[in-house]
Amino acid sequence: MRILVCNDDGIESNGIFALAEALKEIGEVTVIAPLIEQSAVGHAITMQIPLRVTESFKNGKFFGYAVSGTPADCVKIGIRNILKETPDLVVSGINHGSNTAINIIYSGTVSAAREAAIMDVPSMAVSITSHFATDFRFAGKMSRMLALKIVKEGLPIGTLLNVNVPDLPEEKISGIVLTRQGKSKWDDIYEERKDPQGKNYYWLTGNLMEVDNELNIDQHAVRNNYVSVSPIHFDLTDYETYNKMKSWKIEEMLNGKNH
Amino acid sequence: MRILVCNDDGIESNGIFALAEALKEIGEVTVIAPLIEQSAVGHAITMQIPLRVTESFKNGKFFGYAVSGTPADCVKIGIRNILKETPDLVVSGINHGSNTAINIIYSGTVSAAREAAIMDVPSMAVSITSHFATDFRFAGKMSRMLALKIVKEGLPIGTLLNVNVPDLPEEKISGIVLTRQGKSKWDDIYEERKDPQGKNYYWLTGNLMEVDNELNIDQHAVRNNYVSVSPIHFDLTDYETYNKMKSWKIEEMLNGKNH
Repeated sequence: MRILVCNDDGIESNGIFALAEALKEIGEVTVIAPLIEQSAVGHAITMQIPLRVTESFKNGKFFGYAVSGTPADCVKIGIRNILKETPDLVVSGINHGSNTAINIIYSGTVSAAREAAIMDVPSMAVSITSHFATDFRFAGKMSRMLALKIVKEGLPIGTLLNVNVPDLPEEKISGIVLTRQGKSKWDDIYEERKDPQGKNYYWLTGNLMEVDNELNIDQHAVRNNYVSVSPIHFDLTDYETYNKMKSWKIEEMLNGKNH
Repeated sequence: MRILVCNDDGIESNGIFALAEALKEIGEVTVIAPLIEQSAVGHAITMQIPLRVTESFKNGKFFGYAVSGTPADCVKIGIRNILKETPDLVVSGINHGSNTAINIIYSGTVSAAREAAIMDVPSMAVSITSHFATDFRFAGKMSRMLALKIVKEGLPIGTLLNVNVPDLPEEKISGIVLTRQGKSKWDDIYEERKDPQGKNYYWLTGNLMEVDNELNIDQHAVRNNYVSVSPIHFDLTDYETYNKMKSWKIEEMLNGKNH
């Protein structure tokens, strides 16, 4: 099995090193990741400037390819130009911090896996709940087990798994649950400061407003020490509203009958 | 009606000027847009560096607020810090180039409107099919008519409209259709070049592979000179796969029974 490993924290992060090590036990791993941290870049792709690709080393040994772009760029250029063959699986992570509920929208980690799904390659994003995690053993084990599970069961074209693992040793994990995306979101605060020249600048900060309270919802699952596994896709159509909007009769708007 | 106008092409673009002018006829417009073009940044938000906000002028008159960040940043800081009251509507555009099918995922224009939906504010993204459009009269008229329609009919919390308008005069428009997101996507090509120092760099280019062939699909609609109106949301859960994955029995994976 050929596995492309990517992330959004950058090729130097501990999470991607742990992920690559964990997956080497089950396949041939190629690491292709951003040169510089790309957290919260969403599904950005680089079109205004060209990309550079350089080799990256760890402990004096070749570790992978660093791309001067976003997580989605890494998967695109990785599959199109760097790898000789399309990989069997793309795994993105291990992200430092949860990618549950609304964070899925902002996440570069999830977007890298989603780009793979767009390119018809099975994929998975893996995150650990703490930004300060240092022990990736259980998250690495879960990544390996779920990678094998994806290969065994198969995922529909265009669907990826979004996995969130509590930052706990295995014996403290409550279990694994199949989940859907929660509705918790951020109460944003822009902290206003003044620079040495007296001009204003703003830092984004805020608090996650937790509204999810069922075990089959990602944010509630990790909050209760469960590993959360959600299938997600990139069809954003709101079919329920689509059906309701038939009563709007928008096709008549230009006739002057309906406005 | 108080309307926040945003885009991803930047505050200097012709499309946002046309949109602001069109919407001034039906409400009080505040323009809050990126200082620099942000095409294809997806739902990126700025967290690694602080934001700056400056006033922007056109023809010697105050036009709006320029934010040193992404389209989603503009909506967040606009609603949280710049505006005194939450707007009644956010309209993002008029984008130069279609945001149909897979482009919705990459689009900063759509992400700005989506950020408004996340903040519970009704919203709409408007794009014109040509990157080189110069006549925004019909797209402006459609924006105004659909803005009034949203206010009249109401949109569910978390749902936004994604509108694509052919770059044609009104008499050549076939009609308006309610659509869903298409499956057309890019065949990416990274064009390799050498810089003056002889080092490689890569430009992203490619061709849209059109697979959509029904009038109620966004890409096919605009291709046939229809205005396309799609309701989209930000729940990425793939419910069909969610139901199918119950047979995976992932909750048993740690018991050693299922791997």
